[in-house]
Amino acid sequence: MKRRVRVGFQGEHGAFHEQAARKLVAQPFELVPLPTFPALFRALAGRKIDYAVAAIENTLAGSIHENYDLLLKHRLPILKETSVRIVHNLIAPKGVSLRSVRKVYSMPIAHRQCARFLERHRSWEVVPYYDTAGSVKMIMEQKLTDAAAIASKVAAERYGARILAADIGDDKENYTRFFLLGRRAVKLPASGSTKTSIVFATRNVPGALFRCLSAFALRDINLTKIESRPLRGRPFEYLFYLDFLGNPASAVARNALKNLGEITEFVRVLGCYSRIP
Amino acid sequence: MKRRVRVGFQGEHGAFHEQAARKLVAQPFELVPLPTFPALFRALAGRKIDYAVAAIENTLAGSIHENYDLLLKHRLPILKETSVRIVHNLIAPKGVSLRSVRKVYSMPIAHRQCARFLERHRSWEVVPYYDTAGSVKMIMEQKLTDAAAIASKVAAERYGARILAADIGDDKENYTRFFLLGRRAVKLPASGSTKTSIVFATRNVPGALFRCLSAFALRDINLTKIESRPLRGRPFEYLFYLDFLGNPASAVARNALKNLGEITEFVRVLGCYSRIP
Repeated sequence: MKRRVRVGFQGEHGAFHEQAARKLVAQPFELVPLPTFPALFRALAGRKIDYAVAAIENTLAGSIHENYDLLLKHRLPILKETSVRIVHNLIAPKGVSLRSVRKVYSMPIAHRQCARFLERHRSWEVVPYYDTAGSVKMIMEQKLTDAAAIASKVAAERYGARILAADIGDDKENYTRFFLLGRRAVKLPASGSTKTSIVFATRNVPGALFRCLSAFALRDINLTKIESRPLRGRPFEYLFYLDFLGNPASAVARNALKNLGEITEFVRVLGCYSRIP
Repeated sequence: MKRRVRVGFQGEHGAFHEQAARKLVAQPFELVPLPTFPALFRALAGRKIDYAVAAIENTLAGSIHENYDLLLKHRLPILKETSVRIVHNLIAPKGVSLRSVRKVYSMPIAHRQCARFLERHRSWEVVPYYDTAGSVKMIMEQKLTDAAAIASKVAAERYGARILAADIGDDKENYTRFFLLGRRAVKLPASGSTKTSIVFATRNVPGALFRCLSAFALRDINLTKIESRPLRGRPFEYLFYLDFLGNPASAVARNALKNLGEITEFVRVLGCYSRIP
């Protein structure tokens, strides 16, 4: 029997990363939780896992620079991307009703994103916990009768808990974008619908970015993300994160990247990948 | 006697916001802690405070979209900006030594940013807490003899605690950028060294951003930040955050903004302000 592929992610079982993994990996897989993002990237580089699922940005919280740094450090290519809507739920052990809740465990960011719901239950004590799914695990293991947790539906399912109130986040437009990372890039057909992520650095002179973007605009290449990041310690240089629709296997994208290389300090392709809706 | 100005911030006394306030406000002031960013903006709009100090981005964690959203919603102008290096310290009550520490309280993000230090003390229990400064306050009030907290030097000073280990963060390039917000914009001289922050939206067609940036590049205006943010619910539109060196009081910047207005769906100036080093 062939062994199942091992897919690493950051967090506890039941985390939103697990939902992303289900969308990103088609074949049967074993999920391997890792405590931190650096540990996740090290596990993939060191062949402890076959793939890694890593969040890269959230519509409310922004880009996760830590993971861009790890992508630059490790040279592990992006193979696929997807987005997961972050749906917060109030979860409790079976038998615990809304009336018996006294404490609500979750990560502080989840508490903040459910502020309006929690304001309607001011008598509840808001207790910070390390992980959303981990807080469900804890209240189930300790068989708490006056506690609930805020976490995903997947966490409720995994630990056999019940959803007392569904989709309690203030802002429904709360999405996280995830990458599937591997050790080897897969060549995608030049004609397909693909996206490419790059990082480049320019000196901070007027018009520098404008010249960089001309490499794409003059070739009618559509950008889907651009973000500058000041390079600390090198106060007049900037890193840019840029995503465009296209594939370096096509002449037009290859020429754009060549053109960009002439006018920047460095360019790195982080991956060319397809989107899983 | 004239009353001191009231400066609001998010968090507990001793938070990094308090360090930013000391740099941003020259006159004597009273600090008003507020529980969340929406509460902070509401307090300023509702005249409960005279100024607000709000974090807008961190070199490791990225832009705080929540506060960009609040800036768009409330029309409270940016008056000044500054950066504060986030220096994490291990803090304990006087009399508690490194050897007697068993538990370390702080926000999960602070624990993560001190991962290498904590790995050298694996026997310690890492306990999540709602706030960095609040964790110092708690261990002092409860007179814990086996606990430490990770927080700022200002938090140690405010609660009379001692720094057991200074600057324990993994990445020394950890800076947060803060804005000082008021209710009325202050006109700055067109010739001075000022920065302007704007938000604009374009339709997502190839070259749209390139045309927008031409408004600045053709006038030799230097950009210091650009970031795209997909507009959820309007899948082919993007918001852009852009900072440039200059002042709409000057003809060149005024013309650039006029030009930008012709080719975008909307443009908003969030403020024109000076930098406090």
